[in-house]
Amino acid sequence: MLRRVNIAVIGTGRMGSVHARNIARQIPEANLVAVCDIRLEVAQAVAAELGVTRVVRDYRDLLTDASIEAILIATNTDTHAFIMKDVARAGKHIFCEKPLALDLASIDDALAVVEQAGVKLQVGFNRRFDKSFQRVHDLVASGEIGRPCILRIASRDPEPPSVEYARTSGGMFLDMTIHDFDMARYQVGEIVEVYAIGDVLVAPDYATVGDLDTNIVTLKFANGALGVIDNSRQAVYGYDQRLEVFGSNGIAFAENERENVAVKGSQDGYHSARLPYFFMNRYASCYVEEVRQFVECVRDDKPTPVTGVDGRMAVVLGYAAWKSYRENRPVKVSEVA
Amino acid sequence: MLRRVNIAVIGTGRMGSVHARNIARQIPEANLVAVCDIRLEVAQAVAAELGVTRVVRDYRDLLTDASIEAILIATNTDTHAFIMKDVARAGKHIFCEKPLALDLASIDDALAVVEQAGVKLQVGFNRRFDKSFQRVHDLVASGEIGRPCILRIASRDPEPPSVEYARTSGGMFLDMTIHDFDMARYQVGEIVEVYAIGDVLVAPDYATVGDLDTNIVTLKFANGALGVIDNSRQAVYGYDQRLEVFGSNGIAFAENERENVAVKGSQDGYHSARLPYFFMNRYASCYVEEVRQFVECVRDDKPTPVTGVDGRMAVVLGYAAWKSYRENRPVKVSEVA
Amino acid sequence: MLRRVNIAVIGTGRMGSVHARNIARQIPEANLVAVCDIRLEVAQAVAAELGVTRVVRDYRDLLTDASIEAILIATNTDTHAFIMKDVARAGKHIFCEKPLALDLASIDDALAVVEQAGVKLQVGFNRRFDKSFQRVHDLVASGEIGRPCILRIASRDPEPPSVEYARTSGGMFLDMTIHDFDMARYQVGEIVEVYAIGDVLVAPDYATVGDLDTNIVTLKFANGALGVIDNSRQAVYGYDQRLEVFGSNGIAFAENERENVAVKGSQDGYHSARLPYFFMNRYASCYVEEVRQFVECVRDDKPTPVTGVDGRMAVVLGYAAWKSYRENRPVKVSEVA
Amino acid sequence: MLRRVNIAVIGTGRMGSVHARNIARQIPEANLVAVCDIRLEVAQAVAAELGVTRVVRDYRDLLTDASIEAILIATNTDTHAFIMKDVARAGKHIFCEKPLALDLASIDDALAVVEQAGVKLQVGFNRRFDKSFQRVHDLVASGEIGRPCILRIASRDPEPPSVEYARTSGGMFLDMTIHDFDMARYQVGEIVEVYAIGDVLVAPDYATVGDLDTNIVTLKFANGALGVIDNSRQAVYGYDQRLEVFGSNGIAFAENERENVAVKGSQDGYHSARLPYFFMNRYASCYVEEVRQFVECVRDDKPTPVTGVDGRMAVVLGYAAWKSYRENRPVKVSEVA
Repeated sequence: MLRRVNIAVIGTGRMGSVHARNIARQIPEANLVAVCDIRLEVAQAVAAELGVTRVVRDYRDLLTDASIEAILIATNTDTHAFIMKDVARAGKHIFCEKPLALDLASIDDALAVVEQAGVKLQVGFNRRFDKSFQRVHDLVASGEIGRPCILRIASRDPEPPSVEYARTSGGMFLDMTIHDFDMARYQVGEIVEVYAIGDVLVAPDYATVGDLDTNIVTLKFANGALGVIDNSRQAVYGYDQRLEVFGSNGIAFAENERENVAVKGSQDGYHSARLPYFFMNRYASCYVEEVRQFVECVRDDKPTPVTGVDGRMAVVLGYAAWKSYRENRPVKVSEVA
Repeated sequence: MLRRVNIAVIGTGRMGSVHARNIARQIPEANLVAVCDIRLEVAQAVAAELGVTRVVRDYRDLLTDASIEAILIATNTDTHAFIMKDVARAGKHIFCEKPLALDLASIDDALAVVEQAGVKLQVGFNRRFDKSFQRVHDLVASGEIGRPCILRIASRDPEPPSVEYARTSGGMFLDMTIHDFDMARYQVGEIVEVYAIGDVLVAPDYATVGDLDTNIVTLKFANGALGVIDNSRQAVYGYDQRLEVFGSNGIAFAENERENVAVKGSQDGYHSARLPYFFMNRYASCYVEEVRQFVECVRDDKPTPVTGVDGRMAVVLGYAAWKSYRENRPVKVSEVA
Repeated sequence: MLRRVNIAVIGTGRMGSVHARNIARQIPEANLVAVCDIRLEVAQAVAAELGVTRVVRDYRDLLTDASIEAILIATNTDTHAFIMKDVARAGKHIFCEKPLALDLASIDDALAVVEQAGVKLQVGFNRRFDKSFQRVHDLVASGEIGRPCILRIASRDPEPPSVEYARTSGGMFLDMTIHDFDMARYQVGEIVEVYAIGDVLVAPDYATVGDLDTNIVTLKFANGALGVIDNSRQAVYGYDQRLEVFGSNGIAFAENERENVAVKGSQDGYHSARLPYFFMNRYASCYVEEVRQFVECVRDDKPTPVTGVDGRMAVVLGYAAWKSYRENRPVKVSEVA
Repeated sequence: MLRRVNIAVIGTGRMGSVHARNIARQIPEANLVAVCDIRLEVAQAVAAELGVTRVVRDYRDLLTDASIEAILIATNTDTHAFIMKDVARAGKHIFCEKPLALDLASIDDALAVVEQAGVKLQVGFNRRFDKSFQRVHDLVASGEIGRPCILRIASRDPEPPSVEYARTSGGMFLDMTIHDFDMARYQVGEIVEVYAIGDVLVAPDYATVGDLDTNIVTLKFANGALGVIDNSRQAVYGYDQRLEVFGSNGIAFAENERENVAVKGSQDGYHSARLPYFFMNRYASCYVEEVRQFVECVRDDKPTPVTGVDGRMAVVLGYAAWKSYRENRPVKVSEVA
């Protein structure tokens, strides 16, 4: 039998507690050996629920524990970079939630430390682990649809987060489109130029913080393909997540999943279910699978499927989109990176 | 250029006028040379619309016209058999609407005359000419789904005809299921036994004439396959026409066509169009194609795609279903035929 | 906070181990306090995986433990009845896998003991807990589609179990159709008459044990509705599970779930994913939900959603179907019950 | 009975002969009284097929015929403007195929003459008459999906026309995207700015004539909505025509129509039909409906549903897209118009 990887979770808020539960219950390849949160009682509640015996308030207490091989970081974004550096220097492998940071200098600094420490790093782009998007990826990567020509992503949240959130999130291109930039790179490859338009059309408060609630970003890829992403913070019919790669010899796309497969037919026509409410439902299995694969990479000493460079490029593209939007002109990625 | 077949239409009511229009406008392989109806003014209106110069009240006036090669019979059911016989004896090829007749003796008599006259006969089972049902047929006939095991047909009208109609139609198994019996034979082959249940569930008046508005008929095929047809006289969401052949190596089925392909998404879910209202819409192209193929068979001296035996067997199965329903037991087709 | 119900699992084979995992990991309302299997090492492995400390070989060792409130029975079918009786007499609530037993005498005997003991009993008809089938049920029960007229169920396994299994399973109507009989009752109500046809069309070995691999069963419901179930032991495209209730004012149906929502378009058309392989995948969430609801019923002293009568009636209908098949005639349920 | 409008068709090539057939066979509101083509034999063949007695080579021969009320122009694009002017001056109403012309000066000149003559003009943007796109339009216009936020159009031809065609067509933004610009205006309203990217990815010959085979155009609408169109000259799975309007309170979209509704299920999954080959199939009913409505407008003296301004704006947007593509910057429509 293969050995199990000892892993600790730092940050047991919304996302971190999901990861902790997944590790404890659904990833037999790992042992959840400790949880940590600066709000100790939050960490204690999660630990109690999952039967985890070690609970700490200060993540540095975990770094000297030689039995811990890997650490999952799900703290606030502004702490990712310095925690990553400490963890890397302690020689532990890292799974870090996205974004790595909101400023490129911090990212570059942290990635350099990770590189020097020689530890593994995986960034939490969960959507890459969706079985339908993977099927699209396989159809594209295998050449089955020919040369990729057009990428289309529609990615719309069911309702806007609070304006408070937007104040520190980096704004729409960094808190929302970032996922789609990563998906675009995953499906088609490097992006060399973006053009972004956007506006506040559904949630007027967003204007007060200089953010957007609707946008469209066109992409030019290094391999010649063209792409377009559209985003909205408010799709009343649910969490709309569609992807399409059109190629010279066919097309590969992923439809939305529905809340259920029941249909009613009446004099007015056919009525079927809305979309799942949000990412915790739509991507539930992805959150398990991304960490499971990370654990396997640690155990078997393999490269991780989502690298630090992937984490960095998604942020770079977010900045390029903001620059394009503000200057209303196409922006080369090289202008930002 | 290939010669065009001169054809006349007898009976220019609802169905006959559709055929007349199709021949005049959409079947370049034929010339519509005459129309006939005992209500002369009805025939005259159709003739005026289509630029047909010959209009008669008595179909026998057409039989001596050597220029007429083929005749389409769309009169009342109770006249089909004797008109067919006269037309056959006049040496003209026949396209006859279904059912051939409501009593088997008349059918057998007419078919014998047709056979002796050596003219071609095609029966108006229009659904065989639907491109989706043909695709299913091809998948079955080619062996692509393996051995046929289960046939399922759901066939439901949008609203009941008048009870007056039912009084002379032969009842549900003969006015409605007859189409499905033919489709079952077209897809899977000969039927050896049926079991029918039914009731009056949506249109209480039907009970007063001894007819049904809802039924289910199970089938045993000569090749061992099993089948089931269900019918209703009232599907409020439109004309429901679905077909499925399940085989040892796969499945072939035809979904419903929709009135349009637009969809609305709202907080309540997704809403798409109802089904086409009825057969004139759903099977519009079939009515053209069945006559076009008939004309080709006449022109090129080929066997017709729906034979007198097909017309007869559908009626036999209707009688077997009535017998089964009335005696509440499975009935062998040989008991009736 | 609500108290958690202490539950033990008897029988930790395929189905029992799934239940044990679900209770331990996904049903916070319950504590899995003990597991039992006559193959002690099998129970021990499950216990080790789930951190359960009490493991026994003889289920009677659990009956005197006052801390155990409820017991889930997932042993071989032929042991269900006598274990149920012992558990009931010990005053513990029972979740029992289907079928309750293969002979009605045993079922009646066991149900009488359960009744007398006043303990709760839930039978493991998992499909009732599928969200899509529940949505159909709600549409029917609310009257939204009017009076139920036609029930259609297509229920086909991806591949046949071993013939050995069929030798003791009670045969197709009792090992497979039993689920559909229960679903039919859940959706439309009591069944008064059945007519069954069937054959061996895909798995010739089944003929050697007197079983079938393909069947169609028509149903007459007490409320006048008609129904039909079809089954096959081999659907090569996956586990085919479809349900439809057609009513006087509309239709409610559940489509199949797919393995994923990716689609490929090519010169040949569109290609989408096959169905989930089998019940463990398709109904994974139902196995959790049925036990979760059972636990709630125990905790809150509510009636269980699937009763002993439900368990009995599904077996009765299986016998009626066999009788109908063998005598090739419609059989009233009252002839068997 | 309402009077029928006498109409003549000028130009009986591919598109004109379709219109002539439609008028003669499917538009009872009109009489096809004459056909005209500079290739007289082409016009004669169409006239013979349709029983039209008047055939001319020079369209000016029709202008003095007082019995002709309306003229459909389906000649080469470069002749549209001067024929329109002559026809308008003769006081006859005009249905003109798109584009009105390839240079704005000619369009403006012709529209001025039409205006002065007081005749009606309808431009042949057939897609506006598709029942699904109309349903989307109705959902948007009625406010049922709230404020329009994002328009998405995917519009892809099954295979590229000859490079010769592209040499005089105005190129991709004028021969192909022009339809989508009109659809965008029809659905959401006036466009104020465009940004276009494009490339030659599937048909290398197009590079030799300075044209594109793949493009994406983003749109800013006057009402604040954002939009995106993507085009390809080669969709191997058929003529891909999809439209989506996303609003603050829902979404309205039109899926593709399929060649048929048959589906095959096998071990590899589900296989359904490709898309219709091309516009003649996909939009067959639109070509009838647009002319039928034009005829009604003439008969009842109503404004036409697609005006000269519509025809002009689509060309303007084509030029704006070319300018944007060439200068790689967003271009205001006012820069071109």
